[in-house]
Amino acid sequence: MSRFEGRSGPIRLGMVGGGQGALIGSVHRVAARLDGDYALVAGALSASPERAQASGVDAGLAADRIYDDFTAMAQREARLKDGIEAVAIVTPNHLHLPVAREFLKRGIHVICDKPLTGTLADAKKLQAAAEKSEALFVLTHTYSGYPMVREAQARVASGELGDIRLVQVEYAQDWLAEAPAPDNKQAAWRTDPARSGVGGAIADIGTHAWHLARFITGLQPEALAADLQSFVPGRTLDDNAHVMMRFAGGARGMLWSSQVAAGQENALRIRVYGTRAGLEWEQEHPNQLSITPLGGARCVITPGLAGNTDASARLVRVPAGHPEGYFEAFANLYREAASAIRAHRTGAALPEGVVFPSVADGVEGVAFVEACVRSSARDAKWVTL
Amino acid sequence: MSRFEGRSGPIRLGMVGGGQGALIGSVHRVAARLDGDYALVAGALSASPERAQASGVDAGLAADRIYDDFTAMAQREARLKDGIEAVAIVTPNHLHLPVAREFLKRGIHVICDKPLTGTLADAKKLQAAAEKSEALFVLTHTYSGYPMVREAQARVASGELGDIRLVQVEYAQDWLAEAPAPDNKQAAWRTDPARSGVGGAIADIGTHAWHLARFITGLQPEALAADLQSFVPGRTLDDNAHVMMRFAGGARGMLWSSQVAAGQENALRIRVYGTRAGLEWEQEHPNQLSITPLGGARCVITPGLAGNTDASARLVRVPAGHPEGYFEAFANLYREAASAIRAHRTGAALPEGVVFPSVADGVEGVAFVEACVRSSARDAKWVTL
Amino acid sequence: MSRFEGRSGPIRLGMVGGGQGALIGSVHRVAARLDGDYALVAGALSASPERAQASGVDAGLAADRIYDDFTAMAQREARLKDGIEAVAIVTPNHLHLPVAREFLKRGIHVICDKPLTGTLADAKKLQAAAEKSEALFVLTHTYSGYPMVREAQARVASGELGDIRLVQVEYAQDWLAEAPAPDNKQAAWRTDPARSGVGGAIADIGTHAWHLARFITGLQPEALAADLQSFVPGRTLDDNAHVMMRFAGGARGMLWSSQVAAGQENALRIRVYGTRAGLEWEQEHPNQLSITPLGGARCVITPGLAGNTDASARLVRVPAGHPEGYFEAFANLYREAASAIRAHRTGAALPEGVVFPSVADGVEGVAFVEACVRSSARDAKWVTL
Amino acid sequence: MSRFEGRSGPIRLGMVGGGQGALIGSVHRVAARLDGDYALVAGALSASPERAQASGVDAGLAADRIYDDFTAMAQREARLKDGIEAVAIVTPNHLHLPVAREFLKRGIHVICDKPLTGTLADAKKLQAAAEKSEALFVLTHTYSGYPMVREAQARVASGELGDIRLVQVEYAQDWLAEAPAPDNKQAAWRTDPARSGVGGAIADIGTHAWHLARFITGLQPEALAADLQSFVPGRTLDDNAHVMMRFAGGARGMLWSSQVAAGQENALRIRVYGTRAGLEWEQEHPNQLSITPLGGARCVITPGLAGNTDASARLVRVPAGHPEGYFEAFANLYREAASAIRAHRTGAALPEGVVFPSVADGVEGVAFVEACVRSSARDAKWVTL
Repeated sequence: MSRFEGRSGPIRLGMVGGGQGALIGSVHRVAARLDGDYALVAGALSASPERAQASGVDAGLAADRIYDDFTAMAQREARLKDGIEAVAIVTPNHLHLPVAREFLKRGIHVICDKPLTGTLADAKKLQAAAEKSEALFVLTHTYSGYPMVREAQARVASGELGDIRLVQVEYAQDWLAEAPAPDNKQAAWRTDPARSGVGGAIADIGTHAWHLARFITGLQPEALAADLQSFVPGRTLDDNAHVMMRFAGGARGMLWSSQVAAGQENALRIRVYGTRAGLEWEQEHPNQLSITPLGGARCVITPGLAGNTDASARLVRVPAGHPEGYFEAFANLYREAASAIRAHRTGAALPEGVVFPSVADGVEGVAFVEACVRSSARDAKWVTL
Repeated sequence: MSRFEGRSGPIRLGMVGGGQGALIGSVHRVAARLDGDYALVAGALSASPERAQASGVDAGLAADRIYDDFTAMAQREARLKDGIEAVAIVTPNHLHLPVAREFLKRGIHVICDKPLTGTLADAKKLQAAAEKSEALFVLTHTYSGYPMVREAQARVASGELGDIRLVQVEYAQDWLAEAPAPDNKQAAWRTDPARSGVGGAIADIGTHAWHLARFITGLQPEALAADLQSFVPGRTLDDNAHVMMRFAGGARGMLWSSQVAAGQENALRIRVYGTRAGLEWEQEHPNQLSITPLGGARCVITPGLAGNTDASARLVRVPAGHPEGYFEAFANLYREAASAIRAHRTGAALPEGVVFPSVADGVEGVAFVEACVRSSARDAKWVTL
Repeated sequence: MSRFEGRSGPIRLGMVGGGQGALIGSVHRVAARLDGDYALVAGALSASPERAQASGVDAGLAADRIYDDFTAMAQREARLKDGIEAVAIVTPNHLHLPVAREFLKRGIHVICDKPLTGTLADAKKLQAAAEKSEALFVLTHTYSGYPMVREAQARVASGELGDIRLVQVEYAQDWLAEAPAPDNKQAAWRTDPARSGVGGAIADIGTHAWHLARFITGLQPEALAADLQSFVPGRTLDDNAHVMMRFAGGARGMLWSSQVAAGQENALRIRVYGTRAGLEWEQEHPNQLSITPLGGARCVITPGLAGNTDASARLVRVPAGHPEGYFEAFANLYREAASAIRAHRTGAALPEGVVFPSVADGVEGVAFVEACVRSSARDAKWVTL
Repeated sequence: MSRFEGRSGPIRLGMVGGGQGALIGSVHRVAARLDGDYALVAGALSASPERAQASGVDAGLAADRIYDDFTAMAQREARLKDGIEAVAIVTPNHLHLPVAREFLKRGIHVICDKPLTGTLADAKKLQAAAEKSEALFVLTHTYSGYPMVREAQARVASGELGDIRLVQVEYAQDWLAEAPAPDNKQAAWRTDPARSGVGGAIADIGTHAWHLARFITGLQPEALAADLQSFVPGRTLDDNAHVMMRFAGGARGMLWSSQVAAGQENALRIRVYGTRAGLEWEQEHPNQLSITPLGGARCVITPGLAGNTDASARLVRVPAGHPEGYFEAFANLYREAASAIRAHRTGAALPEGVVFPSVADGVEGVAFVEACVRSSARDAKWVTL
C-alpha cells in the first residue's frame, strides 16, 4: 500500500539542486511542466541560503517550501499532508547518493539525473537504498525518451535487424575543448574528481552513449578495452575516450566519447548492424530513424507513420513533421515516471509499455565508467564487466 | 492604466475551443505551460455541454471555471477578481471573430490561432475590435517563433544578403491527399467553407508560408497571380495552390501550398536570395539556417553559436545541439505574449526584442487568401494586394 | 542501308565548336572518351583559324583533320573513306541549325548540345532537316543520362506514384548574379540575344528543367503562365523565370529557373507527386532518388540496389556507393548514341532500353522557351503549348 | 636519362589482370581514358589464354599485343619501339610483387592497385625493386584523388584546424555480410589468404581508410590496438576490424573497417579534430568538405569555390555543382601519374602540386595490416608501427 494512496491531480514534486545559473535543473522543470503531470511545490535549489531563497522565488515556490538543506526538506516534506510525492535530484554527481537516500528512506520517489553517482561504490549503496525503499527510482537518461529511440529498440527486439553483430556509438561535444572560464559552473564540477567522480566525459556523456547502446540492442556486455585521454592541459579527468567492446554472443562495438571534438555540439549517434539490416539514429536529428535492409534502400522512419510500433506511437504528441526535440524526450521520461507513480499509488502494475531507466541501469553505467578507467590505466587491457 | 495592474505570478489564462479530440488546443496548452508563465484556469473547450465538462476536467479546471458558452465565460471571467487575464482562441476559423470580440471588449488579452478569420470582411471587423480594445492581440503564426527564423530575419535586416531579389516559399503536406475519414474533425472543418472560410489549404497553411516570407524579408507585396486546385473529388476548397508574387522594389517570388503532396509531412520551407547571399530554412530541421554568400561556402547556423544575433539568442533555452522543436517555437510566442502582457499591466513599453504576429498580420494573411482566390477565379490574372 | 555499313571499332567522331577556353566542348570530349566507344578524329573547333589549329592539336587531331570551317569539314569528311560517322556540335545556340544541316544532309549523325536552337523557327527547320536525313540526331539533355533519373521515369511509368498530380521543378544557379567579366566567353554568348536566342536562363537551363519534368513524368503540357525577369542591370535576356504549368489530365506544376540565385551552384531539382507516392531527385546528389509512399517512410534508392529496374541498372558502371556524376551521366548519352549508331550501321532496330533526347524533344524545348517569353510579355497570361 | 625520352602524345599503357568479369580493371581503363593521357595498347588481362584473348579483343587491343603471360609481355614490350611506357597492375594482391618486378626491372612505370601486397615481406621486396628501378611506382589509393580530400589535406597543413588531436576514420561496406555466391570472383580472392594475404577487409578497405587518415593529417603513427573479427561462418580472414591508434605528439584515433555492416555501400568517412576546428568528409558525398571552427558554424566547402586552395582547384574539371565522382578521383591519380611520367621522360622535376601514393605508402599500408593482425592475435595489445 502506498503512502500516497488517494492522491490525485498533478504529482507534487520537489527539487534538490538546480538553482540560479544551473542548466539541468531548468531542463527538469520544463520537462516536468510540459505535460501537466507535475506541480513543483518544494525545493532545496542550492546549499547557499541566499541562492536557495532567490532560486525558490524564481521557481514560484511558496516561502515555506523553500529549503537550503535537503535533509531538512526530506524530513519536513515527508510529514506534510500535501508534501511532495517525488523529488528531482539535479545536483553534481557526488551528491546523488546522500540526497537520494534521504528521500528514498521516507518513501518519496526519486527522479535523478545521470550518471547515478561518481563512483561504483556509491552506486551500489544507492542501489541498495533504492531496493530497500518502496519508492520508485528513475534515472534520466534523456535520450531513451526519444520516440525514434523507442522505435529502434522495438525493431531490434522484433528481429528486423536479425542477429546483432556490431554497435557503433559515439557522443561528441566540444564545449570543453579549451580550459573553461573560471565562472563556468557546469564545467567546474564536471572536471573536478571530487564532484564528478572517477570519470570526466566518459561519465558525463559516455554513460549516455553506453546506455543508448544497451537500451536499443539489449546486448549483454562482456568486456571492454579503453584508451582515455585528457587533452586540455591541467585537466585531471578524461575529456576523450576510445573504447572497444565485446558483447555476449559475439557482437562487438566501438564507443567514442569526447568533449574536445571541435565543431561538434551534442552529437550523440548510434549505428547498429545485424545480419539482416542496419539502423542509424542521431540526437541532433532525433525525428529520423534510418533502417537499411541488407541490399535494400535506406528508409527513414519518422514519428507518426502508420507502420510504426506502439513503442514510439505512444510518446508522440503532434502529427508527423512537427519536430519534437530534447525537452519532449526529457518530458517523456517524466511522463513515464508519472504513469509509474500513479500506478504506485494504488499498487497497480506498471501500465503496458511504460519504460524508464532504473537504478540498475545507473549502476551499470557507473560500472562502465570504472571499467573504462581501469582498462585505460592498464594500457587498454580488456576488462570484464 | 491596465485593469490587471497589480497582478503578479503566472498569467491566468482561459481557452475557447480545444476540447477532447482537438489537436491545436492541446498544443496551445503545452506551449502555455512550458515556461511556467501561464496558469490555465478557465475554459469553454467545447460548445457541447458534455464535452465541455469532460474536457475541462481533463484540463484540470475547477468546476466553476468550466463553461460551454464563450459569451458567458467572457462575462463571468471579466467580473471575477481572479478572472482570466488572457484567452487562447483555438476554434475553427469562423468563430475567431465572435469569440475574440467578447473578450477584447472586456479588456481580456487574446491569443488567437491562425488564420485570423475565414473572410477578409471578418478580419477587418476583428481588427477594428482589437484596435478599439485596450487589450493585446497575438496571432500564433508558430513558425516565426523558431530561433533560426528570427536569426534569418535579423540577418536580412542587417543587409547580409544584400538587396533581396527572390523569395521561394512552400508549405507541403499530404494529410488531405485522399478524402478524409468522416470522423476526422481536423479535416472536416478545414474542408468546409462555412467554417474554414474562402480558402482551404491556402488559408490553413498558405498563410503560414506567406507570413514567414513577409516576416523574414520585410518585403512589401504588390501583386500576385494564383492558380488554385482541388484535386480530391468532391472537395470545394483548394487543396493545392501555385502563386507567383511581385514585391515593391522589384523582388519576385513563388509560393506553393499543398495538402496533397504525397510523402510530405509538414514541409514548410523558405529560400531567400539577395544580391550578396542566399538563405534557406526548413521547418522539419528547424535548428539549421543555411546562409551562402555569392561565390562562397554554405554555412549552417545553429542556435547558440557565438556569432548569432540577439534575435535568436534570447529565445534559446539549452546549449547548442539540444534540438528545440515545434512546441518550443510555439512556447516562444507564448513567452513573447507573456512579456507583452506583463508590460501592459503597468503600462510599460514592450521589452526590447519582443516580437509577435499582430492582428494586422492576420488581416494581411486573409487578404492574401482572398487575393489568391480572386486571381485564380480570373484564370491567374495578377491581383494587387 | 547505312552509308557506314561495315564499320566496326570505335565510332569516328568530329566536333564543331569547343575550342580552347570553351567548357562544354571539353565535357563532350570526356563523355565520348569515357567508355571507349568513340575516337575523336576531326574538328572545326573554332571559326578562328589560329584557335582552330591550336585547339585541334591540343585535342590530338591529325593535321589534315583540323578545320576552321564546318562546311568544309562536312564536305571533306563525307568523302573520306575513314571520315567521321558522327559529329558533336558544341557551338553557341544560333549555330546549331547551320552546322547540323551540313552534316545531316551528308548522312553524318549529329550529337548536338542544347537548347536545340535559339528560336522556334530555327528549331523547326532543324527538325525538318533531321527528318529528311537518314542520320540520327541526339540532343544532349545531360540530366536524363543519370541512372536515378531513368529509375524515376521507370517507376512513374510503372504506376508506383499513382496518377501524377503535381510537378515541382527548378534549376537554380548564381553564376550570372552579377554582370560578368568582359572576357567570360560562356557568359557573353548566353546573355546575347543574337547568339543565345529569345531566351536567356530559361533557354540555357530552363529547358533542362522542362525536359527533365517531361522525361520523368511523361505528362503532356497544355498551357503555361510565365513571369520572366532580368535582375542584372543592362541585361536583355531573362536571368530568372517563374512559370506555372498545366498538363493534360489535370496535373499542375511550377518551374523556376534562375542564374541569379546567390549561393546556388547547379541546383537542378525535381519533385513529382502522385495519388500514391511522391519522388524527389537533385542533380547535386544524383545517386539518391527519394520515394515516399503516402503515409509511409521516405526510402532512398541508390544505383545498384537489387530492386532497381533495368532502366537504371543498365547504365551503372560500378558497385553501389561509388558515386558516378556529371561526366558519367553525359557519357551515358554518348553510350546510348553509340548503341543507336551501331544498330544504324546494319539497319537493326534500336537495342531495347536505349533512350536519348531527340530533335522532337529539342523543338518542344524551344517551344517552351518561346511560350514563356510570350506569356511573360503578356503579363503572365496563359499560353497554350 | 629516361629510356622513353622523346616520346610524346598519349602514354602507351599496358595492363596485367582485369579480364572479363573483373571490376577494378575496367575502372582503371576508364580512369586512364578519361583525360586522354593514355592509350591502352597491350595487356595480359588473364592467365587463361582464352580469357586473355577474348578480354584483349574486348579492350580493343591489337592481336599481337594480347598476352597471357605477364613475363612474356614485359619482355616483349620492353623491346618494342612503341612498347608500353607504363603498366597497370590490377591482379589479386599476391601477384602484385611478381608482376611489378618484371616491369620495374625493365624501366616500365607501374601503376598498381592496392594494397601493395598480401604480406609485409612481399611489400618490402616490392619496395626494393621499385627503389632499384628508374621507373615510377604509383599506388592507386583512389580516395586521395578526390579534390575535397586534397583540400582537406591542404587546410590541415595550413594550420586551419590547429594541432590535430583526434582522427575518426571508418570504411564500411556490406557486400560480404553473407557467404558470397561461389561464382563471385571479387569475393573469392578477397576472402582467400593465399591471394589476399594476411588481411581481409582490413587489407582491402582498411588500408584505404588508413591511407586517407595519413594523407589528410600527416600524423606519424606510433602504435595501434586492434580487435579483428570474422563474422561470417567459415571465413578465415577478418571481415570487421576495430582499431585504436596513437600518433606521435599525442593525437589519438579510431579506425573501423567492415564488410559486414548491413546497409552500408561504400561508406568511407573521415573526421579530424584539432584545437581550432574539425573537418568531415564522406566518400559517398565526395564534393562536400565540412569544416567547423570551434564555436562557429559548419561550412561546406565544394569544388570550385573562390576560396579553395590550388590543391583542389587544379583537379576540378567542371564548374561548381556538377558532381565529379569515383571515376574522376581515380582519373586524377592517372593524371598525376601522367604528369610524373611526362616529366620523367626528360628528367624534369615533378610539376608543382603533383601528388600520388607511392610504394612507401604501400609498404606502410601493409605494415598497418600486419600490425592489426598481430595486435588482434594478442588480444588487442598495443603494437608499435
